[in-house]
Amino acid sequence: MEAVGEQPRADSASTHGNGAPARVCPHFHAAIELIGRRWSGAILWALGESPHYFAEITAAVPGLSDRLLSRRLRELEAVGLVERSVEEGTPARVSYTLTEKGRTLVPVMGDLREWARAWKLSS
Amino acid sequence: MEAVGEQPRADSASTHGNGAPARVCPHFHAAIELIGRRWSGAILWALGESPHYFAEITAAVPGLSDRLLSRRLRELEAVGLVERSVEEGTPARVSYTLTEKGRTLVPVMGDLREWARAWKLSS
Repeated sequence: MEAVGEQPRADSASTHGNGAPARVCPHFHAAIELIGRRWSGAILWALGESPHYFAEITAAVPGLSDRLLSRRLRELEAVGLVERSVEEGTPARVSYTLTEKGRTLVPVMGDLREWARAWKLSS
Repeated sequence: MEAVGEQPRADSASTHGNGAPARVCPHFHAAIELIGRRWSGAILWALGESPHYFAEITAAVPGLSDRLLSRRLRELEAVGLVERSVEEGTPARVSYTLTEKGRTLVPVMGDLREWARAWKLSS
């Protein structure tokens, strides 16, 4: 909350009727649009901190289709939150795990969950 | 992270190949789908902790149309995150502020912002 100009704040410049609030923080905005994309948050949550196979993720996220899970996993891979590994074998098996970048998001997701639980939000 | 069965975790039950991860926490899922809806996070951020007029919010969120801001404000009001006040006068002015429920989300948004800044995400 230290960077004036990028944070929610209650000082005079952002007070009611005294002008517009500071421009929305581009870091926050990028993050919320990324993990807030439909199903992405749930997929990251399901991955948690250990690798999982595709079918394990679908089992953990009711309502998510295979097609959309594939797409979201590719997007999350592209932004460096998820890593895909192919295990040799017949058939080869593909598993997904959070990268370090993804793992550091886990506590923030935990805080959001605590907020939601406190206010009794539920899907 | 205390509630086994709803949290990301690294114990044997969620380990690679040993079964599906726990079902995604419905509290977390509801919260991320709510504030992750396109522009909603940015609007909550712009409101910060003091009331703002409609035009002030649009100024703080580049790219957001009046039509979509109206719709999102109604949604955020419906779920109890934002409160609308009409100031008598000619013309009457309408301002928006976070409710207590919305204000308690501000620190979580701040943590997400810190994560995004650390990983150099930007919109």
